[in-house]
Amino acid sequence: MNRNIKLIVAYDGTDFCGWQRQDGEKTRTVQGVIENALEKMHGKQINLTGSGRTDSGVHAEGQAANFYTDIDTIPADRFSPALNSLLPHDVRILDACEVDSDFHARFSAKARVYRYQFLHSPNGNLLPTEMRYNLPLNRYPRLDTLNAYGRLLFGETDCTIFASASDSSIMAGKSPNRYIYRSYFYIEKDRLIFEICANAFLRNMVRSVAGTFLHYEESGTSPQKLAEIIASSERSLAGPTLPPQGLFLWKVEY
Amino acid sequence: MNRNIKLIVAYDGTDFCGWQRQDGEKTRTVQGVIENALEKMHGKQINLTGSGRTDSGVHAEGQAANFYTDIDTIPADRFSPALNSLLPHDVRILDACEVDSDFHARFSAKARVYRYQFLHSPNGNLLPTEMRYNLPLNRYPRLDTLNAYGRLLFGETDCTIFASASDSSIMAGKSPNRYIYRSYFYIEKDRLIFEICANAFLRNMVRSVAGTFLHYEESGTSPQKLAEIIASSERSLAGPTLPPQGLFLWKVEY
Repeated sequence: MNRNIKLIVAYDGTDFCGWQRQDGEKTRTVQGVIENALEKMHGKQINLTGSGRTDSGVHAEGQAANFYTDIDTIPADRFSPALNSLLPHDVRILDACEVDSDFHARFSAKARVYRYQFLHSPNGNLLPTEMRYNLPLNRYPRLDTLNAYGRLLFGETDCTIFASASDSSIMAGKSPNRYIYRSYFYIEKDRLIFEICANAFLRNMVRSVAGTFLHYEESGTSPQKLAEIIASSERSLAGPTLPPQGLFLWKVEY
Repeated sequence: MNRNIKLIVAYDGTDFCGWQRQDGEKTRTVQGVIENALEKMHGKQINLTGSGRTDSGVHAEGQAANFYTDIDTIPADRFSPALNSLLPHDVRILDACEVDSDFHARFSAKARVYRYQFLHSPNGNLLPTEMRYNLPLNRYPRLDTLNAYGRLLFGETDCTIFASASDSSIMAGKSPNRYIYRSYFYIEKDRLIFEICANAFLRNMVRSVAGTFLHYEESGTSPQKLAEIIASSERSLAGPTLPPQGLFLWKVEY
């Protein structure tokens, strides 16, 4: 009976073309490098299931994934150091444990938490040590306005306006509704943090939500007006999709 | 009359083979990429003088450098955004100002400050977001012992024991003495920091000092005994030279 192993994975997304393996190409992906390490351990190909794809350049502090193993000679928690010794330094397995055989990293997930980190920088420059993990902001936005916007999303929300034009799930007529549990801004040390938790996200959605909120806050748009804009489902009214630096898949809840 | 421009430079050393340009090779160096940017601005080759070389992988928060320019149409402080627009994101010019014509980034420097950042990690693993800028420590060293060691170096000290075997200046019979102004350990947030300030450093010296101190602290060696070891100038008694991750050229004083 193969054991089902759940991994918690952290990575620096800068030098990856996202999570998802891209077959037949030489593209470096997180799933690809972990599956390579699993193949070395097992002597055969092993499929790794992630909770979802992260875009190119997006980081993870707590991505979740699972795979089935027929190795029965080591305790589940030893997969973590064993894999880390085979992985590049920009991917780390933070935890490995055995889970029920029907656990599925994607379908069992109840919620995903993303976190966006911003640093104030009048000229748009950040220190080289900061630029991978933060997005520069050239002004101080009003937190109360941003948080009033954030509250507009609570509950089940039609997220069409935040969908990227190329989102195939929307094109295929699937529901653009997502259930949003939390969505708020706060200051932590010298950073502005945007945290959003939902049952699932459309492609590029977090980057579009943050870009839209900052765009309308800057022009002084009222929360009432933004509510109308979101309800219009008019994608051309969304603000810019922000770059991936500073964005982390922070946690997956089961 | 050419103006003499002083730059303050920050960089992430991870993807560089150190500061110094290596002629005729395709090696990526910090001096090399800044000189390339200067060449684009000036339409001709410009020599950049740094305060000193940093080793491969070592970062800088405040490296200093200078160059002479015949561009007289822009104020000195505009060199900073102009160069940043031409530089890769892992190098940033933090400041540019005009200085006396006899200012020389290396010979005018009175002191260099290095800073080493350590993070506690029982298994030697750090998060991908931490591993570029910190060195993992698998135990909690005794700060009072480390600081008693640090005081041994104050003043003019024969640093032969901390020299790398390949150090050409020592091989050439130059003085191994350096004047050390400060050398101490402290805790900042969750990090252990080692800060050392001297008029100048031998090659790899900071990495050797930190490695030697941690090595002898772990074995419980007394400061008196370590003083004898340092005075012996017996290089084989030095501890390991630590890796460059976590080490920053923090500031150059003039």
